Amino acid sequence: MLKEAIYHRPKNNFAYAYDEKTLHIRLQSKKDDLHSVDLVFGDPYDWDTHYNRWNTTQKEMTKTGSDELFDYWLVEIQPEFRRLRYGFKLTKGNEVQYYTEKGYFDELPTDDVAYFFCFPFLNKIDVFQAPTWVKDTVWYQIFPERFANGDKTIDPPGTLPWGSTEPTPTNFFGGDFEGVIQNLDYLVELGVTGIYFTPIFKATSNHKYDTIDYLELDPQFGDKETFRRLVKTCHQKGIKVMLDAVFNHSGYYSPFFQDVVEKGEASKYKDWFHIRNFPIVTEPTPNYDTFAFTYMMPKLNTEHPEVKKYLLDVGRYWIEEFDIDGWRLDVANEVDHQFWREFRTAVKDVKPDVYILGEIWHDSMPWLQGDQFDAVMNYPFTTAVLNFFAKNTIDVTEFTNILSNVLHSYPNNVNEVAFNLLDSHDTPRILTIAKNHKEKVKLLYLFQMSFIGTPCIYYGDEIGMTGEMDPGCRKCMEWNPAEQDLELFSHVKKLLELRRTFPEFGNGGEFKIIDTNPETNYLVYAKTSNERTIYFVVNNLEQQLDVSLSLSQSYQQLINLWTE
Amino acid sequence: MLKEAIYHRPKNNFAYAYDEKTLHIRLQSKKDDLHSVDLVFGDPYDWDTHYNRWNTTQKEMTKTGSDELFDYWLVEIQPEFRRLRYGFKLTKGNEVQYYTEKGYFDELPTDDVAYFFCFPFLNKIDVFQAPTWVKDTVWYQIFPERFANGDKTIDPPGTLPWGSTEPTPTNFFGGDFEGVIQNLDYLVELGVTGIYFTPIFKATSNHKYDTIDYLELDPQFGDKETFRRLVKTCHQKGIKVMLDAVFNHSGYYSPFFQDVVEKGEASKYKDWFHIRNFPIVTEPTPNYDTFAFTYMMPKLNTEHPEVKKYLLDVGRYWIEEFDIDGWRLDVANEVDHQFWREFRTAVKDVKPDVYILGEIWHDSMPWLQGDQFDAVMNYPFTTAVLNFFAKNTIDVTEFTNILSNVLHSYPNNVNEVAFNLLDSHDTPRILTIAKNHKEKVKLLYLFQMSFIGTPCIYYGDEIGMTGEMDPGCRKCMEWNPAEQDLELFSHVKKLLELRRTFPEFGNGGEFKIIDTNPETNYLVYAKTSNERTIYFVVNNLEQQLDVSLSLSQSYQQLINLWTE
Repeated sequence: MLKEAIYHRPKNNFAYAYDEKTLHIRLQSKKDDLHSVDLVFGDPYDWDTHYNRWNTTQKEMTKTGSDELFDYWLVEIQPEFRRLRYGFKLTKGNEVQYYTEKGYFDELPTDDVAYFFCFPFLNKIDVFQAPTWVKDTVWYQIFPERFANGDKTIDPPGTLPWGSTEPTPTNFFGGDFEGVIQNLDYLVELGVTGIYFTPIFKATSNHKYDTIDYLELDPQFGDKETFRRLVKTCHQKGIKVMLDAVFNHSGYYSPFFQDVVEKGEASKYKDWFHIRNFPIVTEPTPNYDTFAFTYMMPKLNTEHPEVKKYLLDVGRYWIEEFDIDGWRLDVANEVDHQFWREFRTAVKDVKPDVYILGEIWHDSMPWLQGDQFDAVMNYPFTTAVLNFFAKNTIDVTEFTNILSNVLHSYPNNVNEVAFNLLDSHDTPRILTIAKNHKEKVKLLYLFQMSFIGTPCIYYGDEIGMTGEMDPGCRKCMEWNPAEQDLELFSHVKKLLELRRTFPEFGNGGEFKIIDTNPETNYLVYAKTSNERTIYFVVNNLEQQLDVSLSLSQSYQQLINLWTE
Repeated sequence: MLKEAIYHRPKNNFAYAYDEKTLHIRLQSKKDDLHSVDLVFGDPYDWDTHYNRWNTTQKEMTKTGSDELFDYWLVEIQPEFRRLRYGFKLTKGNEVQYYTEKGYFDELPTDDVAYFFCFPFLNKIDVFQAPTWVKDTVWYQIFPERFANGDKTIDPPGTLPWGSTEPTPTNFFGGDFEGVIQNLDYLVELGVTGIYFTPIFKATSNHKYDTIDYLELDPQFGDKETFRRLVKTCHQKGIKVMLDAVFNHSGYYSPFFQDVVEKGEASKYKDWFHIRNFPIVTEPTPNYDTFAFTYMMPKLNTEHPEVKKYLLDVGRYWIEEFDIDGWRLDVANEVDHQFWREFRTAVKDVKPDVYILGEIWHDSMPWLQGDQFDAVMNYPFTTAVLNFFAKNTIDVTEFTNILSNVLHSYPNNVNEVAFNLLDSHDTPRILTIAKNHKEKVKLLYLFQMSFIGTPCIYYGDEIGMTGEMDPGCRKCMEWNPAEQDLELFSHVKKLLELRRTFPEFGNGGEFKIIDTNPETNYLVYAKTSNERTIYFVVNNLEQQLDVSLSLSQSYQQLINLWTE
């Protein structure tokens, strides 16, 4: 066996509390190397004084998947006293090795528990627990300036007629809260149960990521009474509301930064930012830390007690006053962990089941240990499904390897609330990525809605809107039924109905790859619960395929999602 | 090259902030497989718009060590904007591969930064920072009942004459604070700069781990005025004081638990513990969570707000009122992480440079991320040095493999403050482990004092005291010079002088294995700074050895630590 490929380390995706009683233990080994793996485990203090050895039990582990290089093994344990020491019995033919924290042994070393890996105590408060409602939520992302103009009296100066021209980085079309309220039934019909709004606070740009005042709504969207009514109406219709918290940086025109621009070192806000020297200059390079190199977005010093208090107050305010259900955290990875830990405590104190979603594009395990976020935006998922279904730049083997790798990079309870998006206001729209090939978009939706995690639909994609990278992807929502692709809408609606009807379709089923073929790129995967298994037979080739499956099920029902 | 052996994942020992400006990036590869590794890195936002690609730089990594299976590579980076995306260029002969978060590539994929690993922002508050004084501290562990009896008027009933008989689990000899005060100059002469006291709070046993009252001293040790004088005198003599915090469990006779024993479910303290049903029973198995299976030590519910407040107040009280310098946390791994995060904030608010040391016997990375502990007790070090020097159960190859593995399991700034003990009140004494072979004890001290981390001497070991597993190891300190091994004392004293004189001897030098021989088990290692290199040539064979070293140094001085 290849020892160099074996990997395990506790308290991350390899050993974690799935719930208050259950531990999940995983192991990585070289692909197709080991024939079986057993967990050898016991209570750390269960010492057999008669034989002078540690008492252990064994439980077989299950191979839950593979990627290009590795197999992954899992076992579930409910230790009676919530404590666990453990090692692994690795078997390859006649070769047996015991793998522990202290290395490899031919015989199980039970003369000392100190050899073994340790999950010292399953403390409830440390268990990663996202709000229970999230697993069943279907999100819809709204870019407020472009969803619907419901109140022309608050249009900003220069507002253009709805959809009259292409979006630019600077033009305005007057989308607002009233427009959202008027169209909530559209979302209900589609099957949406959560709205994620990009920023709505006072700012100068049309995207509002350059916040001026975190405690005020941008007047172009409506006043606080209208927003309160929006949240209340959403709740009446079974829709959660998530707002965008841009705490990594403020806008250049925030009063705090403007005070520093004006007064320089004498400003009482000088330590609210990371300023390298005074006076402030923006060219050729800003002499203060910014988001990327954008002088319009000075990075906030979230370690400063006043900044922290201000932003935590903001976090609480919109929950306390308007009863919002979630915060999506912009550029979450660049803000300090300590701030996010305090943020979690602050907002969960106000509303224990509020959802905290971080924008992180890379490996996010350090933020998903239970003390910071409930989920991150699952960009690795996005990239993989787009490359396979929309762009055909990877084959089905590479696709399933990537998916398996992503799933095994996080605990199962983290995967179940991952925010699975296909596109957003920061990317081209899926139909455009798929070169207007609608069948590919339908496959994308099928896969997104039946995968582990919570899916998000970018406004307008469901009726076939197109658009390149922003500003192109920020077009006005198409409300003319004649211009909407109603067949695509029906497809998405049908998928969401199936997700509601069969728990296995969504997070109630375990995901498993059943069969693939890199020649024709078809893909068969299953979602399994104790009740039933749903097999998904997906043809990603542009021509008809015959696929043979050997399924022996007691009852079988076949649905062609394209025709039924 | 063996891809399965390559490992890297950010935000642990593989990628961490060494200080406010510096990142350390490490890689694991199969032993003796790669010829060189370069870090390929850049600012995440440094996009070359002309060539439409990400701008990167390369820096060669250094092989810092190996263990049985792996080589470890390190590079230090100070990113201008405190942000880093990176990958690895792996070279083996003519074979070159680029390793990224998204896998392996033949050519560097600079068309998208999303391929790369990310250390998104070096936020100062997240940097692991132990108090600066710890690196240079030499600890001395005192079991207060057995160090010195300085005040006979407070001896508990039945106190035995000092050293008159062997220690038992229940006898008392009257050691106290006054006894410590009277003997501080002894510690100063030895070169000790910190005392770690096992518990001193009110309790029934002689070891005091069964706390009755965390806010009161046990009267057998003295009153609060005496303790205040003890701390003050220590500080005057340049000695820090660390106390033992037993927060995982209280004693059975604590008033809180006794209230539950008496009143059962009606007790207002019933939720302070983990009680499975009422009334409380202790046999055959306690019906409440305990430390191990010890009914005398009911586990505290540290998630309960009142318990948390009580214990955090305790943590603050002894710092505020008595100016202690550190807390050693008993059974730290079984208490919830959330509690320790709040504990850190609470005690560092009172005294920013207080030291927090956790008792953890296994892999401790989850507690050493900067948000919980400053250090853990380095038992893997203990086991390795005892097995090699005292017991000769492992050869020098295995020994250096284990050391290398331990050092590479943690960030360098964590290693520099690791609490390196040889024995304690919970183990046999080193001279007994070494079967009274004093030369082996001298080697143990040499290695302990010249390794990375902060050494701790268990009281009396330095003068050749012996003792089996407790209670044997808890004998009364030998104060009769005729019974003390003064030659051993001089050896330890000399080592501590060298550690003070040459920064490289201690944490001012980088540790590197230079030469070993598993036949004769000699060991040559170096400690290197910019100023000088100290080579340690250690003979672990019981006979004289000739060792040839090819050292070309501009100036060489040779010291025989056994004769000079």
